[in-house]
Amino acid sequence: MAERITPRHENYSQWYIDIVLQAKLADYSPVKGCMVIRPRGYALWEKIQQIIDGMFKETGHSNAYFPILIPESFIQKEAEHVEGFAPECAVVTHAGGEELEEPLFLRPTSETIIWSMYKKWIQSYRDLPILINQWANVLRWEKRTRLFLRTTEFLWQEGHTAHATSEEAVEETLRMLNVYKKFAEEYMAIPVLTGKKSESEKFAGAVDTYTIEAMMQDKKALQAGTSHFLGQKFAKAFDVTYQTRDGNLEYVWATSWGVSTRLIGTLIMAHSDDKGLVIPPKLAPTEVVIIPIYKTGNKVKVVDYAKRVYESIKGSYSTEFDDDDQYSPGWKFTEWEIRGVPVRVEVGPKDMGADEVTLVRRDTGERTLVKVSQVVEKIKTLMEDIQNSLFLRALEFRKGNTRPISDYEEFKQYFESDGGFAESFWCGSSDCEERIKEETKTTIRVIPFNQPEKPGTCIVCGEKAEQQVVFARAY
Amino acid sequence: MAERITPRHENYSQWYIDIVLQAKLADYSPVKGCMVIRPRGYALWEKIQQIIDGMFKETGHSNAYFPILIPESFIQKEAEHVEGFAPECAVVTHAGGEELEEPLFLRPTSETIIWSMYKKWIQSYRDLPILINQWANVLRWEKRTRLFLRTTEFLWQEGHTAHATSEEAVEETLRMLNVYKKFAEEYMAIPVLTGKKSESEKFAGAVDTYTIEAMMQDKKALQAGTSHFLGQKFAKAFDVTYQTRDGNLEYVWATSWGVSTRLIGTLIMAHSDDKGLVIPPKLAPTEVVIIPIYKTGNKVKVVDYAKRVYESIKGSYSTEFDDDDQYSPGWKFTEWEIRGVPVRVEVGPKDMGADEVTLVRRDTGERTLVKVSQVVEKIKTLMEDIQNSLFLRALEFRKGNTRPISDYEEFKQYFESDGGFAESFWCGSSDCEERIKEETKTTIRVIPFNQPEKPGTCIVCGEKAEQQVVFARAY
Repeated sequence: MAERITPRHENYSQWYIDIVLQAKLADYSPVKGCMVIRPRGYALWEKIQQIIDGMFKETGHSNAYFPILIPESFIQKEAEHVEGFAPECAVVTHAGGEELEEPLFLRPTSETIIWSMYKKWIQSYRDLPILINQWANVLRWEKRTRLFLRTTEFLWQEGHTAHATSEEAVEETLRMLNVYKKFAEEYMAIPVLTGKKSESEKFAGAVDTYTIEAMMQDKKALQAGTSHFLGQKFAKAFDVTYQTRDGNLEYVWATSWGVSTRLIGTLIMAHSDDKGLVIPPKLAPTEVVIIPIYKTGNKVKVVDYAKRVYESIKGSYSTEFDDDDQYSPGWKFTEWEIRGVPVRVEVGPKDMGADEVTLVRRDTGERTLVKVSQVVEKIKTLMEDIQNSLFLRALEFRKGNTRPISDYEEFKQYFESDGGFAESFWCGSSDCEERIKEETKTTIRVIPFNQPEKPGTCIVCGEKAEQQVVFARAY
Repeated sequence: MAERITPRHENYSQWYIDIVLQAKLADYSPVKGCMVIRPRGYALWEKIQQIIDGMFKETGHSNAYFPILIPESFIQKEAEHVEGFAPECAVVTHAGGEELEEPLFLRPTSETIIWSMYKKWIQSYRDLPILINQWANVLRWEKRTRLFLRTTEFLWQEGHTAHATSEEAVEETLRMLNVYKKFAEEYMAIPVLTGKKSESEKFAGAVDTYTIEAMMQDKKALQAGTSHFLGQKFAKAFDVTYQTRDGNLEYVWATSWGVSTRLIGTLIMAHSDDKGLVIPPKLAPTEVVIIPIYKTGNKVKVVDYAKRVYESIKGSYSTEFDDDDQYSPGWKFTEWEIRGVPVRVEVGPKDMGADEVTLVRRDTGERTLVKVSQVVEKIKTLMEDIQNSLFLRALEFRKGNTRPISDYEEFKQYFESDGGFAESFWCGSSDCEERIKEETKTTIRVIPFNQPEKPGTCIVCGEKAEQQVVFARAY
């Protein structure tokens, strides 16, 4: 503490790093590109896991665990997959004091090892669907890393499902995309755009990749989760067929979908401010902090009173009681603001006399005096207010920074000045996509499900274009 | 299903593997020595995690996550640690298409990487204690592997704590040993011996290793969890000092402790029978299965009635309703016995007439007819009975197969015939320990906390011996 957090307007990237380090969410590790997730960061991950895992189970999925080690030959079985992932793999060549006969890759994702097992487990339509999820660490050798957002090793979940028909697999792909959207919007309080990725942005090995895309406070886009329809590519690569009801042999259909510790970075970038972390109440490991304000003379009385308040709150909310004598109340306010606890309860001698306490919202700083008898109920209302207003603020921000643009010069100017999301028509050619990326550093973030009724003309080449897409600079 | 489970008396090892595979707890993977934990096995692990994690949090610990990659030079900083672990490490030599400057080991355990971070985080007595736990995968290159019990990659938790004094660290070591004992006995229904390991059996880098030791049904011992007092060894290796209250600089004291997916193997070996898995109710992912028994003519009525029973139970217990038409009731009984579900509810046309159902205990096969109005209550009692009787049966079994032996010839005969646990005095010399291991294949499993009042004579050399220890063959 007591270090300064760089303000957002001064240096957004540094602001982000300052928050991660000062709120003690994560730290740099001795291994380049790998991070250490500290207890406060991990507590956020546990909340995320708990909620998403519940949503997976409600939709019929079970967890399992597959080896982190994948034979080199497996990665090479699916042509696009190897091209996308082999260059960023870490490779084990020695173990137990000997050189291995075949190098083993550390999983960058688990399609290959999982489909090698599905081959064993699937014979008949009776064995389908398989709805499995895995919580695991994965490794991708990244050149430029940033705590939470892009690290060599990260934690994630990866769902891998097997289905009898294409329709079922597509339905599953979209079902899980909607689970992610619901989680992002209702729990993280982050509005997301949903839709498809372009060919060049899709997962290596997917037929179609769907995404939830969010806007950060610097107006850049962040891909927060993806859901892939894999067609029969991995079934063919691993020769996984099943006997249909009428006795034919057919290849199995697949999906995969994942979110990672990147969500923690997303959360920080979406809501936090120059004082520190801001956590939506539904994800806050600590929901309330109580800080007694006293002098030497009245300490015992005030702390006793504050403890009674604590007793009445702690059954309803995850609450910390901070009566550490080493620090002043002002120091504590700053410290708990850095940590992002949604509601602070201040208890001073005046409050004691009136049977009151002061509630302070982390997001707005707004102060409310309430009777102790109403404190639990009032906190409930406050929490709901904070959750909603964080979402609305983020939604307004995105709306205010999204512009339909049909002229390429205007497009360039937009991204040379403030930027944001641009809604523009695109003809679908990779040449145009490549050119706009080179000239403006923007990419197609998503081809939204919601499309305008009328076609338009491509922002780059001016040809007729069927689809409107969202361009932005991105993390 | 329909495969035969090898009976225990025929081939205990094969019986174990048959259960793991037929109950679909785990499967062999394409990577030698690594296993796939299938959904039913992972559901057990989730139960174990949930309960133990709660116990860790109650005792003040937080979870965090450290990188799986450890620089070779780190492993080498603690002399005993490198000797113990380096030979069984897997090594990453290439990543991102290039050879690494320094090889990176996949963690066999995380003391070194964690203490390199503690050096950053600890300056003063105010920073202590640090009470961190990590849930993670670890890799140890094993020559002979067995599903769950010994695999190249396994899942575990590893606690790593840092303290200001030796006393606090020892207290923590024993506190966590007791957490493990409580979990083993109250949840796994497995009685354990607790005490210290001999020098030759302790953790590489520990001052003292404490263990919980269980007896399997083949009378072999199994080390189910360990807790280590590490002294200042890792603090010295990584130069981690703290400023005391009076301004001196001292090395920090450490503990580490862990249990792993080995617990699942322990659970199987302790309780299961020739029909399949037996799971203590407190750890059963599915607690009750309801099987309607009907013929074509009365199907609708019986299934309706069974569903009403299901509705009345499912709020109280994790319950499955099996009305799959493809299989006969007999087939289903066998299948759910293999899976180890503690209580089966049979619902037939006769029961329906009498407003009754039949409850069948998985552990004894005992059948009880109960009124539907009492079924929830009766299941509760049954569950408690099963939990208790599994523990008592295991306790009786251990008692019946533990013998105090003071004569070496008798000792040899004991282990040439049936074997079990032998309580014998040991002089403390590693020569005697080595000799008895070579001659009888037994090891010192534990030096129990509870010691006889009088000293005795060493089972091997006949010299005066202060401590009685437990010898056994072990997994």
